[in-house]
Amino acid sequence: MSDPRVFRVPSGPVDLAAIPTDATPGFKGGKRDGKAALFAMGDELADLQERLFAEGRATGSRRRVLLVLQGMDTSGKGGTLKHTVGLVDPQGVRITSFKAPTDEERAHHFLWRIRRAVPEPGYLGVFDRSHYEDVLVARVDRLAEPDEIERRYDEINAFERELVDDGTVVVKCMLHISKSTQKERLLRRLDRPDKHWKYNPGDLSARAKWDAYQAAYARMLERTDTHDAPWYVVPSDRKWFRNLAVGQLLLETLREMDPQWPPADFDVDAERARLLAES
Amino acid sequence: MSDPRVFRVPSGPVDLAAIPTDATPGFKGGKRDGKAALFAMGDELADLQERLFAEGRATGSRRRVLLVLQGMDTSGKGGTLKHTVGLVDPQGVRITSFKAPTDEERAHHFLWRIRRAVPEPGYLGVFDRSHYEDVLVARVDRLAEPDEIERRYDEINAFERELVDDGTVVVKCMLHISKSTQKERLLRRLDRPDKHWKYNPGDLSARAKWDAYQAAYARMLERTDTHDAPWYVVPSDRKWFRNLAVGQLLLETLREMDPQWPPADFDVDAERARLLAES
Repeated sequence: MSDPRVFRVPSGPVDLAAIPTDATPGFKGGKRDGKAALFAMGDELADLQERLFAEGRATGSRRRVLLVLQGMDTSGKGGTLKHTVGLVDPQGVRITSFKAPTDEERAHHFLWRIRRAVPEPGYLGVFDRSHYEDVLVARVDRLAEPDEIERRYDEINAFERELVDDGTVVVKCMLHISKSTQKERLLRRLDRPDKHWKYNPGDLSARAKWDAYQAAYARMLERTDTHDAPWYVVPSDRKWFRNLAVGQLLLETLREMDPQWPPADFDVDAERARLLAES
Repeated sequence: MSDPRVFRVPSGPVDLAAIPTDATPGFKGGKRDGKAALFAMGDELADLQERLFAEGRATGSRRRVLLVLQGMDTSGKGGTLKHTVGLVDPQGVRITSFKAPTDEERAHHFLWRIRRAVPEPGYLGVFDRSHYEDVLVARVDRLAEPDEIERRYDEINAFERELVDDGTVVVKCMLHISKSTQKERLLRRLDRPDKHWKYNPGDLSARAKWDAYQAAYARMLERTDTHDAPWYVVPSDRKWFRNLAVGQLLLETLREMDPQWPPADFDVDAERARLLAES
């Protein structure tokens, strides 16, 4: 798969309708090839992630990765966690799934609960939904005034700038699906008793506001795609491609960070001698 | 692999020296077969874990699993997390690695930080080290008076009883290795630059107190193996067997819990009609 930075949101006004949901840019091949390619990247991804973890444990490095997953219902945030994030050692992963805020969370600034979930050095943190809900559902359902929403974009940019300054590489993915794909997936959830638990009648209310959500996503992309914390729009109608594309983004991110095994901060030969000298 | 309850600690006085570290009880086959058997259980394990997760999300069930991993340095707590716990969807897993307590943690009761890490309903929680350090290193290094250590066993039993009453199935594994296996593994860490970060010269101090640690483990097993929260002593000189045995314990635990896909709490046909009626 070629450089996944082809998914970087274009600068300027964003027209999501013009970005295909079912394309497979940068990859020649079908479902079977895509699954094989994801599997094939597993070892390198796991190795790089373990090096980053080692660096965080054994050195004073503050580097870490934060992957933010956003998308409409059924866009595959959970599937990406399972199939892509699931490729690496779970010891080094911190997943936080953000639900509707609790009363306690609501009593605080919207970034309060987000800050508490920022991964520690060495970790791959993943946000399944995030602070972006506070400019998406909040905008669509008018849970906050337009002025407040505008302020939030700026606060988010400042917050992510802080994260980056503190050693976090921030990768933000919008899992982009079509309205008809969502319909298929919701019908499938209804057809399969083992998927009923994932279905919520409230999902149809959000679906009824599809266009308003797309507009809110577009505005979010325009206002919060920054050099420090870029947004990628990942065509997600094909699950295998979505998993592969997010995997490739993680892989390129880690390759660029190029974490190294920490050098020994002790005398290796002396330690070996101590061990071998045991009675 | 046969019923892993063969690893249940024998009742009465525990003599760890009499429990083999390099045996493969209940399994006929070698390393290759063992790895294949672990891989083969992956789908069922992942399916059962997802059902438990669904139950926790969609029903009022408070059921969850807590796997406690204890063992001497190099016994393979990390390897078990990677190879066995790594078989299931990371979304439903909560791993907590307990280090030496911080000042804040030390200012509280020893169970304070443990309670904060108890998994929520539906989750598979894993403790990499645990409250048992407070009766192991604390006993060996005399960080607490003997009376206090005795009291802690009782407090631990009461705490785990609470967990069980609240819906948690507690599975405790001591990863049992020989002193010579530890030596081999420490030497290996010294020989490999990519393992140096896992080595700490302080590890040799704990190793020098091997017998005192074994005695502390034996006493811990005698005092805290309960009907509610049993201890299993897993022969761990062979990594593949350790991974397989812990996997089998998790599998049997989940099979016995027998989580079911939650039934729909909405009218499936009405929802389908709503979706299909869309313009």
